[in-house]
Amino acid sequence: MRTSVFVGVSLDGFLARKNDSYDFLAPHMGEDNGYDAFMADVDVVVLGRRTYEVVLTFPEWPYGDRLVVVLSTNLSELTPPEAANCELSRGPPRHVVEDLERRGFHHAYIDGGATIQSFLRDGLVHDITIGRFPVLIGDGLPLFGHLAKDVRLELRRVSSSPSGGVRSEYRVLAS
Amino acid sequence: MRTSVFVGVSLDGFLARKNDSYDFLAPHMGEDNGYDAFMADVDVVVLGRRTYEVVLTFPEWPYGDRLVVVLSTNLSELTPPEAANCELSRGPPRHVVEDLERRGFHHAYIDGGATIQSFLRDGLVHDITIGRFPVLIGDGLPLFGHLAKDVRLELRRVSSSPSGGVRSEYRVLAS
Repeated sequence: MRTSVFVGVSLDGFLARKNDSYDFLAPHMGEDNGYDAFMADVDVVVLGRRTYEVVLTFPEWPYGDRLVVVLSTNLSELTPPEAANCELSRGPPRHVVEDLERRGFHHAYIDGGATIQSFLRDGLVHDITIGRFPVLIGDGLPLFGHLAKDVRLELRRVSSSPSGGVRSEYRVLAS
Repeated sequence: MRTSVFVGVSLDGFLARKNDSYDFLAPHMGEDNGYDAFMADVDVVVLGRRTYEVVLTFPEWPYGDRLVVVLSTNLSELTPPEAANCELSRGPPRHVVEDLERRGFHHAYIDGGATIQSFLRDGLVHDITIGRFPVLIGDGLPLFGHLAKDVRLELRRVSSSPSGGVRSEYRVLAS
């Protein structure tokens, strides 16, 4: 099963402010950032609990009927919107991946800062697409975090958007 | 006087490891990254003390006979290599810029993490060129830091290098 990260960050590498707001991405919303094409290939979503709770505030559930695995070591149950197809998992990442593979999923979208970081630390991310937007916010929830060792990647493609976003697509190299 | 930043960082935004090593940039050295063309226009360099001390370990002083202003609140004197043209300054950034402007300099290269951050915080950076290289190191000396408010930029140009570096050139927008 392929695992992909697809995120937008500030130029200083934050997914959101400390209060979970991503208002700074607003000037770049509505541009074709490749997300729809990416999602068309995804058949399962793995979300951190914090990201899941942000998504719950959206006017519409964005993942259709795809399975969404919510990672949390604290929650004991989920109360997702009616149309949503959610499961709770305590992880760890390797168990999540093995379980989804066994069940026949072929492409997982990994989202949420802490979740992305734990999958990267465990060598369980294949592809990373980063949209980097031209604003420094100084503080917030970082995309990347501590690692036990360097992670090398291969640049596959770069493009820029009219509003000044830079999208870079990477493949994570085996260490 | 124009002030520019020209840096190389890991994909997770570090200028160097905590021990000042930038070994992770080695696979990308020797590529034309635009540095020589950039430096040809620079007539004064402003370095943080820590970067200055790293540069002192280089086999050759890299700034020719350009004036190099070393910012430090601790050092009481400098002992630079013989060919070097160095001055010590305690800052703050605005005083440094005003002084250099008065003396007729037209383009300052601002380097060093803490120094770049203080010039950015004080609204004293005009241009930023970032070469971002495809490796995550997890920890180190960050390019960017805390800010009192958002800093918006305009993307001027993006290019990629054969080894997978992504060079983005930004103009800092007035806030």
